[in-house]
Amino acid sequence: MKKSIFYHAGCPVCVSAEHDIVNLVGSENVEIVNIGENRSRISEAEAAGVKSVPALVTPGGNALHINFGASMSDVKS
Amino acid sequence: MKKSIFYHAGCPVCVSAEHDIVNLVGSENVEIVNIGENRSRISEAEAAGVKSVPALVTPGGNALHINFGASMSDVKS
Repeated sequence: MKKSIFYHAGCPVCVSAEHDIVNLVGSENVEIVNIGENRSRISEAEAAGVKSVPALVTPGGNALHINFGASMSDVKS
Repeated sequence: MKKSIFYHAGCPVCVSAEHDIVNLVGSENVEIVNIGENRSRISEAEAAGVKSVPALVTPGGNALHINFGASMSDVKS
């Protein structure tokens, strides 16, 4: 199975959601990307439809926004 | 593994998220509950911390709200 990508920005809501997602999906099935630290991947996340973090982009390309933590504009500012 | 519970209310956002979650977690690991039709389970969902649907309650008891579809007050009205 193609990996999902979990985008977050280190916020407490993000970390909590990350643990849940890794437990549910399995750590081998999801790549974790901190776009607060790894800012070169912000544009990739936006292209995938990510409007806020934490978000999970599925292997099928859907962006699932989970428990609103921070908008992309907050992450970029 | 204890099952997760995915609560939804039949909205288009819910159905899309349901497909993604079932694909990611595996249909054998998640119970799907339509609280628009199965209204007796609304109180159970609220007790689990569900504030809007679609939402996934993990085996650990965390409520993950996914792509805002409808508030619980909308479902109840």
